[in-house]
Amino acid sequence: MRDKPSTQATLQQVADAAGVSLATASRVLHGSGGRTVREELRARVLAEANRLRYVSHAPAQALARATTSIVGLIVHDIADPYFAAIAAGAMRAARDHDLMVMVACTFREPQLELEYVARLRAQRARAIILAASAFTGTRFLADLADHLAGYADQGGRVVAIGDHGPGVDAVIPSNYAGAQLAAEHLVSLGHTEVGVVSGPDTLATVADRLAGFQSVLPATAVAAGDFSRDGGYAAARELLTARPSLTAVFALDDVMAYGVLAAARDLGRDVPGDLSVVGFDDVPGAADVGPPLTTIRLDLAELGSRVLGLAVAPPNGSVTVPASLVVRSSTAVAR
Amino acid sequence: MRDKPSTQATLQQVADAAGVSLATASRVLHGSGGRTVREELRARVLAEANRLRYVSHAPAQALARATTSIVGLIVHDIADPYFAAIAAGAMRAARDHDLMVMVACTFREPQLELEYVARLRAQRARAIILAASAFTGTRFLADLADHLAGYADQGGRVVAIGDHGPGVDAVIPSNYAGAQLAAEHLVSLGHTEVGVVSGPDTLATVADRLAGFQSVLPATAVAAGDFSRDGGYAAARELLTARPSLTAVFALDDVMAYGVLAAARDLGRDVPGDLSVVGFDDVPGAADVGPPLTTIRLDLAELGSRVLGLAVAPPNGSVTVPASLVVRSSTAVAR
Repeated sequence: MRDKPSTQATLQQVADAAGVSLATASRVLHGSGGRTVREELRARVLAEANRLRYVSHAPAQALARATTSIVGLIVHDIADPYFAAIAAGAMRAARDHDLMVMVACTFREPQLELEYVARLRAQRARAIILAASAFTGTRFLADLADHLAGYADQGGRVVAIGDHGPGVDAVIPSNYAGAQLAAEHLVSLGHTEVGVVSGPDTLATVADRLAGFQSVLPATAVAAGDFSRDGGYAAARELLTARPSLTAVFALDDVMAYGVLAAARDLGRDVPGDLSVVGFDDVPGAADVGPPLTTIRLDLAELGSRVLGLAVAPPNGSVTVPASLVVRSSTAVAR
Repeated sequence: MRDKPSTQATLQQVADAAGVSLATASRVLHGSGGRTVREELRARVLAEANRLRYVSHAPAQALARATTSIVGLIVHDIADPYFAAIAAGAMRAARDHDLMVMVACTFREPQLELEYVARLRAQRARAIILAASAFTGTRFLADLADHLAGYADQGGRVVAIGDHGPGVDAVIPSNYAGAQLAAEHLVSLGHTEVGVVSGPDTLATVADRLAGFQSVLPATAVAAGDFSRDGGYAAARELLTARPSLTAVFALDDVMAYGVLAAARDLGRDVPGDLSVVGFDDVPGAADVGPPLTTIRLDLAELGSRVLGLAVAPPNGSVTVPASLVVRSSTAVAR
């Protein structure tokens, strides 16, 4: 009975060998259906499938079922802890639904986002999650809408983090309101001359955070850079050199704020004695930088898990997730 | 000619409409072949494919070709900056080969690693990259070897980061030699009473780093925790409370070292005045913690890009990548 089979095993043979129902074997091997299979049964099915050299022909099944167990997740850059934390949250949730997450990075190129949508469509992904902030160019948005409509025609589900238009259910971070919290915090500490380290102005997140902040506390100066530590560093150096009277800097995300802290160190500005710094996102690590960063917290793992939840549910509208102020050691009363 | 077609378009029609060869259209839409298509042609093909509602039937092609354009990447946790940086490196390299990377997280459960291998095999992934450190249980290793053999029988390619046995080409970080560098650095600063914050002893990386360190400087005490900030925090609290005479701590990875720094702060131990701390990996962010972390650097993006390179190349043996000491502000002469 332990000999290698000479002909291809069927799913029924695997189920029989493992002592489970055909439906259970199918759930384990094809990732179909929402119900979870007990760890022990799962192990037995996998072992027997392997022993019998069962080949599940997922592509053939994808043709038959028109969808796969794949969910595509499109991010700007997985090395950015913001996206990494969201992806981890989505992957944990995917596990409960027996789905696999395929992460694609656009490296902030609109053309690559279009291409990945086309690829995921061709792979018959069950859903596409647009986790990257929408680019704002109208030409791009029209092209993207076109691609997504084609995917939806095939029965694909599209969801997003951040507003991607009326047709797309989204989990929407409170970018505008969160940035207002940052401004109110600085106002309460007596800051009036404040610089903003901003991101690429083609991103909707940037526009929302900037507008929210300025609705409370108009910035003395704004400098834009890449959404990266180096981008934050360069923009902060520019700001602090041109405007030495600034007593605070708001960085539109935490990773840029890391660059602001480094620039302040290099320019001999003590944080928070000479300069207060506020970030946005509360990425893992924000509590460990020197000094621990005051920031606007989004629950990133929860964002990821909720957007995966949207991806597997029928269309039901968007949800907004709150942002909150976390005061650590990088802000103090204006000198 | 701009009307919506009523019947399904063929690849030839897309190629004609875009004014490109059939081969070029195929490369753009199916991600086959290694050659890169110019951005402009690619955009034209995608636009026409979308306009004509061309459906590429990737699953059908996968059956015909026996492989897809997917490379599976199995990591422990994508929210860990070590894996995020490796994944980003692999994704950048994948782009040059017209491949998509599908990341799966095991959350450090051996059973999930087996399951993902089975899933990727069913999806006809072109290659599987085992980026997570191998678990050391012999039962697990036998099961994994069995699954991978089945996948290889189908023509799949398996590569790894870290030694996964003789059949698997790997990019091997210098864990043993890197940990020796950490120990030599502490010896040169006069430290003799040193604690090690270690990870789960089921992981090969842990065994290698611990052995390398101890070959130079036998640890006064070792405490194990999860490979996470919280794991590092708990282990460091235990060590520093039980052994107040320790003058240095070596954490087996940077994220654990962040926890060590936090524990030292909470216990009122000044770093580096009272206590030196050394990490391992040089993850993005290690230069930004308070104080900036002395660590053993691995070029993580390069690790990711090289392992992707192995995945698309014919079997040719493993390569070792070097580790180097980066001295920042968390280490000083023993008090």
